[in-house]
Amino acid sequence: MSNYTHETVPTQFVEANGTRYAYRRFGKPGTIPLLFLEYFNSNMDGWDPAVTNSLAADHEVILFDNAGVGASGGETPYMVAEMTKHCVAFCRALGLKQIHVAGFSLGGMIAQQLALEHPQLVGQLILLGTGPRGGEGMTFTELSPEEQADPVAFLLAAFFAPSEASQAAGREYMKRLESRKTDRDLPVSRDSAVAQLAAIREWGTIPATGRYATLKSITHPTLIVHGNKDIVVIPINAFILAEHLPNAQLIMYPDSSHGAFYQHRKAFLEHLRIFLSNGASAVPDQNAIKSSVA
Amino acid sequence: MSNYTHETVPTQFVEANGTRYAYRRFGKPGTIPLLFLEYFNSNMDGWDPAVTNSLAADHEVILFDNAGVGASGGETPYMVAEMTKHCVAFCRALGLKQIHVAGFSLGGMIAQQLALEHPQLVGQLILLGTGPRGGEGMTFTELSPEEQADPVAFLLAAFFAPSEASQAAGREYMKRLESRKTDRDLPVSRDSAVAQLAAIREWGTIPATGRYATLKSITHPTLIVHGNKDIVVIPINAFILAEHLPNAQLIMYPDSSHGAFYQHRKAFLEHLRIFLSNGASAVPDQNAIKSSVA
Repeated sequence: MSNYTHETVPTQFVEANGTRYAYRRFGKPGTIPLLFLEYFNSNMDGWDPAVTNSLAADHEVILFDNAGVGASGGETPYMVAEMTKHCVAFCRALGLKQIHVAGFSLGGMIAQQLALEHPQLVGQLILLGTGPRGGEGMTFTELSPEEQADPVAFLLAAFFAPSEASQAAGREYMKRLESRKTDRDLPVSRDSAVAQLAAIREWGTIPATGRYATLKSITHPTLIVHGNKDIVVIPINAFILAEHLPNAQLIMYPDSSHGAFYQHRKAFLEHLRIFLSNGASAVPDQNAIKSSVA
Repeated sequence: MSNYTHETVPTQFVEANGTRYAYRRFGKPGTIPLLFLEYFNSNMDGWDPAVTNSLAADHEVILFDNAGVGASGGETPYMVAEMTKHCVAFCRALGLKQIHVAGFSLGGMIAQQLALEHPQLVGQLILLGTGPRGGEGMTFTELSPEEQADPVAFLLAAFFAPSEASQAAGREYMKRLESRKTDRDLPVSRDSAVAQLAAIREWGTIPATGRYATLKSITHPTLIVHGNKDIVVIPINAFILAEHLPNAQLIMYPDSSHGAFYQHRKAFLEHLRIFLSNGASAVPDQNAIKSSVA
């Protein structure tokens, strides 16, 4: 299995509670797997092979379609918390005891919920272009289920900044997305996109009380990565996460939007490697301190 | 000269326009020097030898007392812009054509002014625990020239967060500051501290118009490093710098205050190394784009 790449790894399926989940698993066996949770309206083919293949040298990599997305069966729920339950069922069906979770945008919302509700399942947390529950300007009024009508124009406008350097990085990124030629994922259905949009809007609704209150309970070593010109999830949300999460490092890249970690992927991959090798010991969590004192 | 360390390098002096500047120069010859600009009320002995010695393996390192500070002659000016002029005179006196500048707090203010007024002198910019001109909450009402009366208590309270992990890192940092045994710098005089305090308060005054307007002209590759619990320069200032500087990468560390880069120095040194090796090519500046198109 370790000789597979992003381009060659076959799509597999596993069933739990009546839902059949599509996934792809490759990379270095015997490591804590890195589970990738995808963004709104995307499937397993939306991950940049330059990122996944590079990480696969040191980690097992698992790409995954949540319920109702792409090649997975079932229906896409209208709530992040319900998507998180599917994610847990998928992990249990694969017998995974611990995973590092990299979530991009919607995927980062699920990743936070997963860390909050199942702290022992998550090792380290990587939050890419995402924001806290009830964050700033996260009602996503500009998004619609029809974005997929012209994905190239959408991605260049939303994932990359207007500068020539950023747009050029965007075109390179989209070329790389085509490197997998066979066994491509199924498109995201309109029903799934409608449900996902409802879920991220619900996540973005500012609560009447206790805004950001749950973040202090996510004590996992966390890496937050954001673009300083992100027009989908505005950058202040990454700052809010870094302020409130007890053990989070924030990295913000210049001249970049929602796809900052693709645009700056050389630096990102170096930063992520440092985080994955150092992160676990950066700040001990409160329970660990208490139990070692007791 | 390359065999010297933070502990053994002799203090030297150079004169320009009637002011005699104290400095220490060591590290790898033939590289673009890293000039370190120190924080309020500190001298060359305030830099962490674990940081300077590590950087000296790949770069020439220059520590420097600005006018009126520590062993330097002259009088400390009451304005950051005037301190910047002294800094330029010092660089010219040493015949330096280009430097990378690492400025901590007050030093980061001078570093910004230097990059703005003398863009060709500065290669890459490293802004540690600092903020933009007219930033948020930067009137420093809690600081006084008498901080030096109990430097240990001051540093533990201001540079490190209240957590046990952060306080322990603070005690380690202060032990390291003692590693240089001979030829120590002179203390900062009360007159100098009074002038520095006036300078940082003037820098922190919110202008009537054009707040943050000059930042777009600082196109140097910039690394901003900040603690997410910095009580001296509140963290939002680092975010504002990252929003407005066209080519700045922000890194914010958890559970840390003004001395975040000392507390997280292992990660910081790795991040700084990546920045110094990649930074120059991260985003081309606007003039470079224009001239290559013309």
